[in-house]
Amino acid sequence: MARIAYVNGRYLPLTDATVNIEDRGYQFGDGIYEVFYAYRGRLMDETLHFARLERSRGEIGLASPMGAAALRVVIHELMRRNRVETGLVYLQLTRGVAKRDHVFPGPVPRPALTITVRPKPEPPEALDGWSAGAITLADERWGRCDIKSINLLPNVLAREAAKQAVALEAILFDKAGMVTEGASSSVWIVGADNVLRTRGLDQHVLPGCTRAAVLEDVATEGLDFREEAFSLEALRQAREVFITSATSFVKPITALDGVPVGNGAPGLIANRLYARYLARLKEG
Amino acid sequence: MARIAYVNGRYLPLTDATVNIEDRGYQFGDGIYEVFYAYRGRLMDETLHFARLERSRGEIGLASPMGAAALRVVIHELMRRNRVETGLVYLQLTRGVAKRDHVFPGPVPRPALTITVRPKPEPPEALDGWSAGAITLADERWGRCDIKSINLLPNVLAREAAKQAVALEAILFDKAGMVTEGASSSVWIVGADNVLRTRGLDQHVLPGCTRAAVLEDVATEGLDFREEAFSLEALRQAREVFITSATSFVKPITALDGVPVGNGAPGLIANRLYARYLARLKEG
Repeated sequence: MARIAYVNGRYLPLTDATVNIEDRGYQFGDGIYEVFYAYRGRLMDETLHFARLERSRGEIGLASPMGAAALRVVIHELMRRNRVETGLVYLQLTRGVAKRDHVFPGPVPRPALTITVRPKPEPPEALDGWSAGAITLADERWGRCDIKSINLLPNVLAREAAKQAVALEAILFDKAGMVTEGASSSVWIVGADNVLRTRGLDQHVLPGCTRAAVLEDVATEGLDFREEAFSLEALRQAREVFITSATSFVKPITALDGVPVGNGAPGLIANRLYARYLARLKEG
Repeated sequence: MARIAYVNGRYLPLTDATVNIEDRGYQFGDGIYEVFYAYRGRLMDETLHFARLERSRGEIGLASPMGAAALRVVIHELMRRNRVETGLVYLQLTRGVAKRDHVFPGPVPRPALTITVRPKPEPPEALDGWSAGAITLADERWGRCDIKSINLLPNVLAREAAKQAVALEAILFDKAGMVTEGASSSVWIVGADNVLRTRGLDQHVLPGCTRAAVLEDVATEGLDFREEAFSLEALRQAREVFITSATSFVKPITALDGVPVGNGAPGLIANRLYARYLARLKEG
């Protein structure tokens, strides 16, 4: 079955899903995006994702194409047309088509909204096999990574460097040697003190929706937790490292730059939080 | 007359000039670009622009769609079809269309090459009127601004901030308070010591083609010059400030954050270098 995409009000076969070359998303990366995980017809953490979309939109001054309720209708219609109940929903919003000039165009063009969906298997019942290696890399991204923009070239290069090292993710650290986040995930560690840590939100990290949801699970589990930055050194000495994102759920990092993390197997806390994640997924 | 664009081997009316929404340029900003100034049918500093295109391409590992000689043929054919002899040529190259995933796609898709041209008036005979105001702004761009990538959202936001302040350009400074460059230009100052300065090339600035050409003029003029970084404070106290780029040529900045630079008029050295620029333009 041909994949169907949503493009500015129309449902089109993906091969016909096009935008003008003067769409500012194409020439300037002047746009934002969201990725939702759909599980059996429901969008996981959808309130968080729609809120973040609104925030990103406001931060770069994009006009709104439609409200969250209408967007939800479009997404579900697109899932129906693609017969996808469990998978990834990719939504992108750009400033639209205008003669190329850096400044915001006037009059304001219609923002360009494109959405695609594709199937993705359900998460495994246990973490066996659901783990990966990561590399560490200097964070060379811009100063506003809290905006989920489509300026993703540094992330692309970081993930490609990870792939070349037979790893999945690149964990980034700033000039002070503090970990920011993964190229496409939030990063968590459990230290020798058994304290779970993830960096607090600032302009250098994306406010992860899965991160926010897992934070609630951390409280429910009563884990010893601190929301604070940690160093590359602390990362290397961690008993457990795991990442969270809409596509990786809760995923243990079992090797860092080729060196096993802890005993090289998914850790106790990752297992507990993964179980919580699965429970939330199934409760709906 | 409808504008004609070049899109992956075809010459199309601009309204029909489209790319797939899964072009990596659209979803990741995974591409590079060049802007040439064409003057009476000739591409200014074309050797420098083609060399920079090759360099950017290599830095992010893009496949080559064609060599510089073939590209030159396409550009001139596009100028002919648009009846543009003097204007701007915009050329963009992306990693092509692939199912969305950060890592480089395999097999390697055909890179997407798009080119547009549009008329731009010839530069004025003298600098009267050819000047502008600038604002100063923290440089929040990524760590590889030496690559001419289409990840331009920070540049867009900076230029928009300038426009809101009724200025043309945003002059950027790093965390150490040193000027990097303009959001879309190289920056030069003449200090109280009468020394002309522009920052040396590193990963935080674009190797400007017009900058390189003007450097030769600086030598020809025998100006007292140092290629070295200067501070925001030095910028504010400069006698003269000017920018260079393919679209601004040599353009005096006569006000900074609303405060006149020097006596608020184009300076002596900018005038000399602008005259040199015009001479080169006309000599061909």
